[in-house]
Amino acid sequence: MAKQPIPYKTYLSEEEIPRQWYNLNAAMKKKHEPFLNPATLKACSADDLKPVFCDDCVEQELNMTDLYVDIPEEIRDFYKMYRPSPLVRAYCLEKALGTPAEIYYKLEGNNTSGSHKLNSAVAQAYYAKKQGLKSVTTETGAGQWGTALSMATAYFGLDLIVYMVKVSSEQKPHRKEVMRTYGAQVIPSPSDTTAAGRKILAEFPGTGGSLGCAISEAVEKAVTSDSCRYVLGSVLDHVILHQSIIGLESKAALDKYGITPDLVIGCVGGGSNYGGLIAPFMGDKIAGKNETEFIGVEPASCPSLTRGKFVYDFCDSAKITPLAKMYTLGCGFMPAPNHAGGLRYHGMSPIVSELYHEGLMRAVAVEQSKVFEAAEYFARTEGILPAPESSHAIRVAIDEALKCKETGKKKRILFGLTGTGYFDMSAYKQYNDGTMKDYIPTDEDLAKGFASIPDIPQNK
Amino acid sequence: MAKQPIPYKTYLSEEEIPRQWYNLNAAMKKKHEPFLNPATLKACSADDLKPVFCDDCVEQELNMTDLYVDIPEEIRDFYKMYRPSPLVRAYCLEKALGTPAEIYYKLEGNNTSGSHKLNSAVAQAYYAKKQGLKSVTTETGAGQWGTALSMATAYFGLDLIVYMVKVSSEQKPHRKEVMRTYGAQVIPSPSDTTAAGRKILAEFPGTGGSLGCAISEAVEKAVTSDSCRYVLGSVLDHVILHQSIIGLESKAALDKYGITPDLVIGCVGGGSNYGGLIAPFMGDKIAGKNETEFIGVEPASCPSLTRGKFVYDFCDSAKITPLAKMYTLGCGFMPAPNHAGGLRYHGMSPIVSELYHEGLMRAVAVEQSKVFEAAEYFARTEGILPAPESSHAIRVAIDEALKCKETGKKKRILFGLTGTGYFDMSAYKQYNDGTMKDYIPTDEDLAKGFASIPDIPQNK
Repeated sequence: MAKQPIPYKTYLSEEEIPRQWYNLNAAMKKKHEPFLNPATLKACSADDLKPVFCDDCVEQELNMTDLYVDIPEEIRDFYKMYRPSPLVRAYCLEKALGTPAEIYYKLEGNNTSGSHKLNSAVAQAYYAKKQGLKSVTTETGAGQWGTALSMATAYFGLDLIVYMVKVSSEQKPHRKEVMRTYGAQVIPSPSDTTAAGRKILAEFPGTGGSLGCAISEAVEKAVTSDSCRYVLGSVLDHVILHQSIIGLESKAALDKYGITPDLVIGCVGGGSNYGGLIAPFMGDKIAGKNETEFIGVEPASCPSLTRGKFVYDFCDSAKITPLAKMYTLGCGFMPAPNHAGGLRYHGMSPIVSELYHEGLMRAVAVEQSKVFEAAEYFARTEGILPAPESSHAIRVAIDEALKCKETGKKKRILFGLTGTGYFDMSAYKQYNDGTMKDYIPTDEDLAKGFASIPDIPQNK
Repeated sequence: MAKQPIPYKTYLSEEEIPRQWYNLNAAMKKKHEPFLNPATLKACSADDLKPVFCDDCVEQELNMTDLYVDIPEEIRDFYKMYRPSPLVRAYCLEKALGTPAEIYYKLEGNNTSGSHKLNSAVAQAYYAKKQGLKSVTTETGAGQWGTALSMATAYFGLDLIVYMVKVSSEQKPHRKEVMRTYGAQVIPSPSDTTAAGRKILAEFPGTGGSLGCAISEAVEKAVTSDSCRYVLGSVLDHVILHQSIIGLESKAALDKYGITPDLVIGCVGGGSNYGGLIAPFMGDKIAGKNETEFIGVEPASCPSLTRGKFVYDFCDSAKITPLAKMYTLGCGFMPAPNHAGGLRYHGMSPIVSELYHEGLMRAVAVEQSKVFEAAEYFARTEGILPAPESSHAIRVAIDEALKCKETGKKKRILFGLTGTGYFDMSAYKQYNDGTMKDYIPTDEDLAKGFASIPDIPQNK
């Protein structure tokens, strides 16, 4: 094992930015169940998906065999603008906690989008451009994904329409303005630009919209034009493939010091950052090359892994997407207004769901007041203001480090710091003011959500 | 000259973070005139300054002889948390402009304070702690300085009171919340916590406050306690000393490729980032070791260098500070509501003023609509959303690169990208909406400001 001292931050060189993504699907002995066409209940084919998504993304989505997938040079050139991201040794946090554990985190927030989302946004924009498309559509709630995509489409010269949940576009005008600065057209959803939007507006004139409705509008806009496709920021296999760059860079940096983490921790919403962070470590575990433990951290207000069902469900609340076999609270589950908007999702990526179902990882649900306590502690010791989503991972990393203090174990903990909290200050204000509430769904709340799960033979 | 290819981003190693600051005062053949005690009109001694500022900072302020000043290990340890900052080769911007020029920028915004301000905040907080003080006070307008200082005082376990211009604290509640998250007490100024504040409130009950008033309150609070001092984020020599780390790191990175910049560009408000960026390059120029040109960029709305007078003036509008020989619009000049809050200052650091007076640098004033045009262009090509202040430098860097396109000259341009614009989205909104106005003071406006310059023998 290397004896060289470990600096606060380890940057790979530009040459060391990975040239291939890591396809966790290929590493998994048991593959997740296929997406189903809700009309036929048959496995989705490439032809089912290509009217919605870019051709290359569809091929990646269905690729269960190639462990490594080449990263096109054009995408790698964009990566060079903000990657490699640093792997940080949290010396100050370790000292403040008095733990014998070694804590490392991979910082993905040091780009204008403020999160890891850019890793997949640039890939999807590139493939759209390569296919000769003129524009792409998407939806955004809190705005991270829309911001990342607007940066990517500006770079590749594509038009972008972002359907932003109306209430979010009113609550987060600054996020909207970042997207506009990058040239995106931001339309509060529901809108009169689609049949789906007009229908909702007619039924509920004063509605503030929902992610489900915004997805419906974005997909409709995409499929009704030959030169346009829809892009999605999480959940799907090809998104996790793109996000594997997080794990690959983390592993390459740790390998320099001969370190294999004992524990890898990440927050889980749709599952893309987590899937990307753990990918190469989990692949090695499946291959018997390490004994690393994995923890996915979710909000107690939206506990898809810890309290959900492992069944086929729609990926959206409007029931227009394919069905995915996943841990879900039901596509009709309405998450409470927790501040971690990026984790407020009823389901979980099929890859992460399958790993959890097989016992290859654990899941922990945490309450947001405990999350913000950890966020503030982290900000004051490590200097970085974390996003509420990322702070779920910080909470559990701190808890695990404190367990090490009790047991004296020198565990090596790696967690994903997915983003920064600059656009989440109203949440921090609630915490600072002492007015933050925790939300834990009752069994009745969950039952209502479960009732929305489709009643199909595969779910019997 | 090295032939190795230059990556997008050059990071020094942790070991290469400078161990000494560069004292531009010592390099200057003609020193700037000393600060004057306004009561006696004699040069300020250390004893005059020590009741207000930390002892070590006072000694640094008056140090005209040591070219290098050691950086204490404790400060260097903090620097390791967010430094070295990258030196970026703006390949995408060069390509988009079609210029033969090589453009480099030093990115100082990748820390939670969002700007270079942290470089001096941590130093001043450290010296306060070393002196056994319990707390420090400061004022903040737009909030960058207050944010940086709150991070530094949280790290060193000092109490911090920030007097924030009341109208700013209302317009920028999110900035205030970042400071609170780092444990600072943020008091909208004017307040009833000081005699100065109470006096203003009695005279102008509904006032939104001013930077001058906030300075008065912060200084009063500091000097009325033995265990407290006041800290300032710009203008002064010791602040520029701390900021020299920007220039030193830039130079160390460029030296790796055998590159001496032909042109160094920075925005100028109080002058600290600019003074820090240019320090080692300017020192070499004075010593005859290079022929680098220097440009300071200021807002046309607050043109202290291009339209100001080189006289003794107060550093604050409340006329409580020492007098500085500098380019000034008069301490009573009221800058228009330009969006670059960090450049809305009536005066200019004595060091930068002296360099300008001697013809060692040029100054350019630009209008904010042109600045935001450059900011948006830069965001879309380089991926980074710049602060309005920093975008002044971007504007002139682009203009100079376009001149190279005409002349065919392959100039090497270095500019300082001092910060990110995440908390400036209402300014971007005005630009996106097409409602942004430019402000250029009339000669009458300037005459009013000049009338506030003190009528002392030194100004005859």
